[in-house]
Amino acid sequence: MTITSEILHKLKEIVGESYVFTDEETRNHYGHDETEDYVFPPGVVVKPGTAQEVSAIMKLANEHYTAVVPIGGRTGLSGGALCILKGIGLSTERLNKIIEIDEKNGQVITEPGVITQVLRDAVAEKGLFYPVDPSSMGSCFIGGNIAENAGGARAVKYGVTKDYVLNLEVVLPNGEIIWTGANTLKNSTGYNLTQLMVGSEGTLGVVTKAVLKLWPKNSHNVLMLVPFFKAEQACEAVSAIFRAGIVPSALEFMERDAIDWAVRFIEGVSVEVKPEHQAHLLIEVDGNYPDVLMLEAEKIMTVVEQFEIDEVLFADTDDQKNALWKMRRGVAEAVKSNSVFKEEDTVVPRYELPVLLKGIKTIGAKYGFKSVCYGHAGDGNLHVNIIKGDMTDENWKTEVPKGIREIFDLTLSLKGTLSGEHGIGYVQKNYMDMAFSKSHLEIMEQIKYIFDPNNIMNPGKILPERN
Amino acid sequence: MTITSEILHKLKEIVGESYVFTDEETRNHYGHDETEDYVFPPGVVVKPGTAQEVSAIMKLANEHYTAVVPIGGRTGLSGGALCILKGIGLSTERLNKIIEIDEKNGQVITEPGVITQVLRDAVAEKGLFYPVDPSSMGSCFIGGNIAENAGGARAVKYGVTKDYVLNLEVVLPNGEIIWTGANTLKNSTGYNLTQLMVGSEGTLGVVTKAVLKLWPKNSHNVLMLVPFFKAEQACEAVSAIFRAGIVPSALEFMERDAIDWAVRFIEGVSVEVKPEHQAHLLIEVDGNYPDVLMLEAEKIMTVVEQFEIDEVLFADTDDQKNALWKMRRGVAEAVKSNSVFKEEDTVVPRYELPVLLKGIKTIGAKYGFKSVCYGHAGDGNLHVNIIKGDMTDENWKTEVPKGIREIFDLTLSLKGTLSGEHGIGYVQKNYMDMAFSKSHLEIMEQIKYIFDPNNIMNPGKILPERN
Repeated sequence: MTITSEILHKLKEIVGESYVFTDEETRNHYGHDETEDYVFPPGVVVKPGTAQEVSAIMKLANEHYTAVVPIGGRTGLSGGALCILKGIGLSTERLNKIIEIDEKNGQVITEPGVITQVLRDAVAEKGLFYPVDPSSMGSCFIGGNIAENAGGARAVKYGVTKDYVLNLEVVLPNGEIIWTGANTLKNSTGYNLTQLMVGSEGTLGVVTKAVLKLWPKNSHNVLMLVPFFKAEQACEAVSAIFRAGIVPSALEFMERDAIDWAVRFIEGVSVEVKPEHQAHLLIEVDGNYPDVLMLEAEKIMTVVEQFEIDEVLFADTDDQKNALWKMRRGVAEAVKSNSVFKEEDTVVPRYELPVLLKGIKTIGAKYGFKSVCYGHAGDGNLHVNIIKGDMTDENWKTEVPKGIREIFDLTLSLKGTLSGEHGIGYVQKNYMDMAFSKSHLEIMEQIKYIFDPNNIMNPGKILPERN
Repeated sequence: MTITSEILHKLKEIVGESYVFTDEETRNHYGHDETEDYVFPPGVVVKPGTAQEVSAIMKLANEHYTAVVPIGGRTGLSGGALCILKGIGLSTERLNKIIEIDEKNGQVITEPGVITQVLRDAVAEKGLFYPVDPSSMGSCFIGGNIAENAGGARAVKYGVTKDYVLNLEVVLPNGEIIWTGANTLKNSTGYNLTQLMVGSEGTLGVVTKAVLKLWPKNSHNVLMLVPFFKAEQACEAVSAIFRAGIVPSALEFMERDAIDWAVRFIEGVSVEVKPEHQAHLLIEVDGNYPDVLMLEAEKIMTVVEQFEIDEVLFADTDDQKNALWKMRRGVAEAVKSNSVFKEEDTVVPRYELPVLLKGIKTIGAKYGFKSVCYGHAGDGNLHVNIIKGDMTDENWKTEVPKGIREIFDLTLSLKGTLSGEHGIGYVQKNYMDMAFSKSHLEIMEQIKYIFDPNNIMNPGKILPERN
């Protein structure tokens, strides 16, 4: 898809010359996210500063049948922001204003280019809490979180992005600007286009403003790291904690290698990982009453002590807590630094985690790959890092996809699905036929067609290729 | 829309002769819900017992271009279950099994014809909590709750129906049976058809199974009734309570008349409503630690004492609590017994409640109607009962709709919308043009068309009539 000089000229008219980039370096920079080692540079990078500019870009692109890919913080793990047909890479980085923190209603109105952590910090200063915390929150954008329906460690208690999006300003592929809903906590007014937009991976429109729900901020938390001698017992403990009546604010699972590699990769984290520790659970409870949190921590101890565990580490200081979270959030990067890999984002009902974990190892053995598993166990969301290691290129290409198919077969048979929080994007789309019937996929295709009849909006994502 | 003898014959083949009804009494019985005094009987009532039977009915109806209206507990307030084109009234009352309470995963799999209270009680016996509690929960069905995205008093802390629906088995208008998603807490796998189905008021398909999320059950709560001398101050206190860092499990507003009529209508409730009490807030906090709840109640007292209030009633016993809730839940019925009325389901950001309330009274004065307002103030969801009283039939017909339009103008200008939890159904559909642009409504129409090209599925609901 070529960017003609006419399109280029008009783009410069819309956003100003200094916000249109065609040099190779910039295009390459915006041509990748965090998905394996894929690079698909757009033909041109534009950086609009207003919804009106986005609208003008969309109108132009729609007239010329030119692909437009919204690009956020480029931390995605399913290739949602890759410009696979070249076209226009629409960076939202200049749409980076928090428009209003509405303390009276407990809401924030924000543009999509705001970094998640920046938003969290800004509302926290007003005593408010935006709980969604993807591991990449230091660099990912709210817009990307909405596109992928991002989760994070606190989702187990507080829910995922979709649970916080009340209303969206969206530029449709034809350039029209709509608000999808209302700024209200409840809404039973017509089909829920807000929720249809969340998780649609930039294939239906460009989000230019979002109204997000906030909670009052909690003042205290207790964080503990529990080493298990048996990985499957760690998985079993997850369900047992809930059955004891406790809803932790985080319940993270890390296989031995995940924590081991992270500890070695990340500076300033000193956790002793003994060879016999097969897995760890990182467990947090939060609230406003320290005494209650201690009671809950004790209840959790009573649960985990029914399994074969080593000594539990309680994080006593904020520094210790930050170090443990830094370690947890660094796992993906640590794995990445260690080997070529593919990351799957499996999700199952939480009690099925031990079955899933065991199955993944069996499948890996069958196809000759090692995997490092970790993730949001409280949600049944297990990230599977398939490690290339010393696997041949040939086997990496032919055997691994077969193994992934078997892993997905397993998650589906356990009433789970393909992606919990990363989205389908580019890399999982050809597995979609496993989760949905032909006519079910056709419904999705037709929904796409309603919004985007010319298929210019982030084409080649989510829906499987037609054979 | 006539039910031919051929259709009748085939319906009997599908569900069995004893589950097909054409007598006038049965048709009239299924021809109304709780929406004003509307009666639209179906041409035939069928009561399928399985998803397969529903599928066969839909195939038959689709071939014959015959309207099908799913009918649940008939407690709806927007006319969603009215058979306005006659056709087939599909009662879900025989799909009334709780299929599995999955304690290990904190989920319940249920059929749509289960009464909400029955489901809540059944899971409570296992120590689990399904928080959604519409006032009609003693008779409404889970299927209807899903259709209208029902809320209730606990929504302020726990969310509405959409926040609990993980996965749906749906019979599409062409008879195909699909599962919309997966039985997982997180899901970023394609367009969110689950959330599209929730709140679609039976216009896209018939829900035949639902997988719902559950929480561990709380063991304690504190309930208090606060009388305010000024109604607007009661509204202001709502936002102030949240700003004090408290998330109550219920925060209900009742205007003077609402509580006064309810007290007189419902047996066994003794609350003294002084003439100078303009409004009440019914406030609940819940949790597992009584001491904490007392602390939170004290904090709430500190907030409400900043306003002009009379003596606060703390419900000391379960009987007192039940009586207060019975009173609150009885308001709608009390109003109904008192006069012909129309109920609107306005919703705004909660801080705008005082503006909304004042505006409604001003609009009522302008058009000559009295209103009784009450509802879920914590969510900004105010039910407006417009009372006919001694208004002439002529004015009731001509003036009230103008007033309703002005009320909706006001809610929209406050960034609110038409319906918080009752749905649009039959009675609000011709106000939809106020909330959505023409092209926005066209998107909704096209979504409807994807699922239901022959427009047989609950036709004449949600979308405005074409002029």
